[in-house]
Amino acid sequence: MTDQRRPDGSLRHLITLEGISRTEIDSLLDRSQGYVRALGERAPSNRALAGMTIGNLFTEPSTRTRVSFELAGRRLGAEVINLEVQLSSRVKGESMLDTIHTLEALHFDAFVIRDSEPGVVAHVAANVAAHVSVFSAGEAHQSHPTQGLLDALTVRQHKGGHFERLRIAIIGDIRHSRVARSAYEVFTALGVGELRLVAPAGLMPASGEFPAGKRCLTLEEGLADADVVMALRIQKERMTQAEIPNGEEYFARFGLTVPRLRRARPDAIVMHPQPMNRGVEIDSEVADGPQSVIRAQVRNGVAVRMAVLEALLRPRPGGA
Amino acid sequence: MTDQRRPDGSLRHLITLEGISRTEIDSLLDRSQGYVRALGERAPSNRALAGMTIGNLFTEPSTRTRVSFELAGRRLGAEVINLEVQLSSRVKGESMLDTIHTLEALHFDAFVIRDSEPGVVAHVAANVAAHVSVFSAGEAHQSHPTQGLLDALTVRQHKGGHFERLRIAIIGDIRHSRVARSAYEVFTALGVGELRLVAPAGLMPASGEFPAGKRCLTLEEGLADADVVMALRIQKERMTQAEIPNGEEYFARFGLTVPRLRRARPDAIVMHPQPMNRGVEIDSEVADGPQSVIRAQVRNGVAVRMAVLEALLRPRPGGA
Amino acid sequence: MTDQRRPDGSLRHLITLEGISRTEIDSLLDRSQGYVRALGERAPSNRALAGMTIGNLFTEPSTRTRVSFELAGRRLGAEVINLEVQLSSRVKGESMLDTIHTLEALHFDAFVIRDSEPGVVAHVAANVAAHVSVFSAGEAHQSHPTQGLLDALTVRQHKGGHFERLRIAIIGDIRHSRVARSAYEVFTALGVGELRLVAPAGLMPASGEFPAGKRCLTLEEGLADADVVMALRIQKERMTQAEIPNGEEYFARFGLTVPRLRRARPDAIVMHPQPMNRGVEIDSEVADGPQSVIRAQVRNGVAVRMAVLEALLRPRPGGA
Repeated sequence: MTDQRRPDGSLRHLITLEGISRTEIDSLLDRSQGYVRALGERAPSNRALAGMTIGNLFTEPSTRTRVSFELAGRRLGAEVINLEVQLSSRVKGESMLDTIHTLEALHFDAFVIRDSEPGVVAHVAANVAAHVSVFSAGEAHQSHPTQGLLDALTVRQHKGGHFERLRIAIIGDIRHSRVARSAYEVFTALGVGELRLVAPAGLMPASGEFPAGKRCLTLEEGLADADVVMALRIQKERMTQAEIPNGEEYFARFGLTVPRLRRARPDAIVMHPQPMNRGVEIDSEVADGPQSVIRAQVRNGVAVRMAVLEALLRPRPGGA
Repeated sequence: MTDQRRPDGSLRHLITLEGISRTEIDSLLDRSQGYVRALGERAPSNRALAGMTIGNLFTEPSTRTRVSFELAGRRLGAEVINLEVQLSSRVKGESMLDTIHTLEALHFDAFVIRDSEPGVVAHVAANVAAHVSVFSAGEAHQSHPTQGLLDALTVRQHKGGHFERLRIAIIGDIRHSRVARSAYEVFTALGVGELRLVAPAGLMPASGEFPAGKRCLTLEEGLADADVVMALRIQKERMTQAEIPNGEEYFARFGLTVPRLRRARPDAIVMHPQPMNRGVEIDSEVADGPQSVIRAQVRNGVAVRMAVLEALLRPRPGGA
Repeated sequence: MTDQRRPDGSLRHLITLEGISRTEIDSLLDRSQGYVRALGERAPSNRALAGMTIGNLFTEPSTRTRVSFELAGRRLGAEVINLEVQLSSRVKGESMLDTIHTLEALHFDAFVIRDSEPGVVAHVAANVAAHVSVFSAGEAHQSHPTQGLLDALTVRQHKGGHFERLRIAIIGDIRHSRVARSAYEVFTALGVGELRLVAPAGLMPASGEFPAGKRCLTLEEGLADADVVMALRIQKERMTQAEIPNGEEYFARFGLTVPRLRRARPDAIVMHPQPMNRGVEIDSEVADGPQSVIRAQVRNGVAVRMAVLEALLRPRPGGA
């Protein structure tokens, strides 16, 4: 397991939700909820991170997550710099660690990293100076911790804190999904009643993974009496891998439609990490319908990132 | 006509100058002039938009207009984020409206949009939440309202407010020019004495368009006793369309030179929206000469964008 | 020589270190050292440049130098805008000077320019309005003045101010290096005891250049009793030019290794402008070893850029 804690046990990095306790998660969600409550039409802002500098290193394109972290940092008073390091590094052949040490010497207090290679985030975290924190903004198929937290916050807002009473269904390409892995970690830590993994056999995770999940090979089984329905984005190359010829066929088997959603509880909420393939994994009638909380997820994303940045970066006694 | 007003009749979006009254234009120009007056060597700045977040969505390259809006927003205390959404959207196939709703959920107060597709700006404006304003930064061949306002401001500064006494000549590719369309709208609203459209037949607008304009097929006719001479940028593919073989030939027929400019009034001013093709639509001797107010246009551009952002985004009673 | 001074003799631009006096250099280094001293874990910041706008124009990729100038400007309270002008200019064929005048009209107070074409920085400096300053961030093979200053600061921190007692060896592709040229200028101005140019014949500068330098064709000769060892980055195409077939051969002849470094003084420091080609011009054992001050150079880079921006841009009497 990646070591993301300080010697005193407090969280220094946020690389994975694995090993984070229910108490810690509740505390982060409470802090996030404070920022959500402060959201009127205008975004809340304070100066908690004034004087700090945060570097965004996104080596995969992601407007939503990058801007979400950027706004979270700025609304806390930090400088946020978007770094296009991999491009410049490639041009000159600079190694990843030399780049990081160079940036560190420029006095960055934190790095927010999205990368398609597993292990890069932890590698950086293991090599930065003691006062620097590293936040994952999505790593390979492995982990997307702030997405997990915002999903948990969204469920808590709509279904309350009694996770042990809830049935949550995650539908789609679970095998290759960092969103599903972080959702599994956070919901398991929060003691969810039943966590269903709904996917065709080819997209089901390996047998050792998601040990507490209940595997369902049909959408019908997965949706029955569910409280929370979370559709994942499906990519064409993955359909082929699952022997599904195209988007229409996927929609026919696993697309979330209004008639199918009737199998879930009448007050079930529908989530999606975005961007959506409308007409493939979800019908527009559902995405824009009364049970959808998809936009709330985005709004919660900024609040969660503000909470996480503030909680881990707050000036510590003995700091400068 | 695009609806860019609130139910109480006040301007919420700025998509087109069509339908904006002379009183409203005068008020925006007065406010702009205030910012111009404050311009010494140092840029003026205040905190009128503190706490607000503005997103720049430029899907066509335009350093000048993008930076002009960015500086205008920042000098009013707003956060301005440059969003490269179309790129990221293309990569993942995200639809325009999902992108906009996602950004909205991140608590943007305004979007500044430049797009080569007609209707995109109005489409976004029609679909954002009630507290969000949308500003066009140039749309297809149709509209470039802040350019129209800065052109009007520049004329007013040099020729005074009696537009009914003025002869204004717009020269070049009027058919495909959003600059010409917005200039036509603003000068018509301000009651200009005579507005001449000077172009070869192939670049003259369709017969229904620019109804109050006087069409001139030669530069000589167009320039005679003009008070304001506005040259437009011409592109190679358009020359061909007008059966003009190359830049030299265009310059021979429609290029603004010092001898030709003598046909205009001795105190005529010369304008150009930039970037210029020196030696094609304008001679350097004219562009850099004593009658040129081209740099003043750029300076007025920041002032106009500050005025427009502040006027439309000012905290309303009942806002957060 | 480029004119980078105001009529009263004070520095207005920073294009080259040529012609800058020892007193001026000492004053800039003292000011830089003040910012280094303020560096704890947190970066120092003040509002010395509040209300000013700085434009970064980097037409060559350079994350480190661009971010270093960006952070320097922001930590002094200035707005810093990254301008991608050359790209946009290419698209529309806008000329360099029109671009600069346009930006000037947007009220920029300073431009930071990196360009691969010799003369571009001076050309811009010669054409901007009197209140605008221009800073080179690296120009062709000619000049990289802030790198020269940060190198001098690093030497002074570790070896004290008696440059006349020091032997400094610059190793590598001196012929094509702006880093070497600016180092030569600053160390010569500071009265260095001996400045050695260590390179294969094909990478030695032309005979008229670096007149006070002592040329050494072997690493052994160059390192003997040196106090400061500065390795330069070598590029593949340059090796070929020097009739060195590949990186391994270069490393065999000019690579800085621990055994070779023993020829220098035991307290010699090792510098490199970065990015490094580990295993080509420098061994990792040296780069990460106890004599390396490479990371200190980066940290000093932000301090030097803060000092230079503040010294040249400070509000002058009579300014707005």
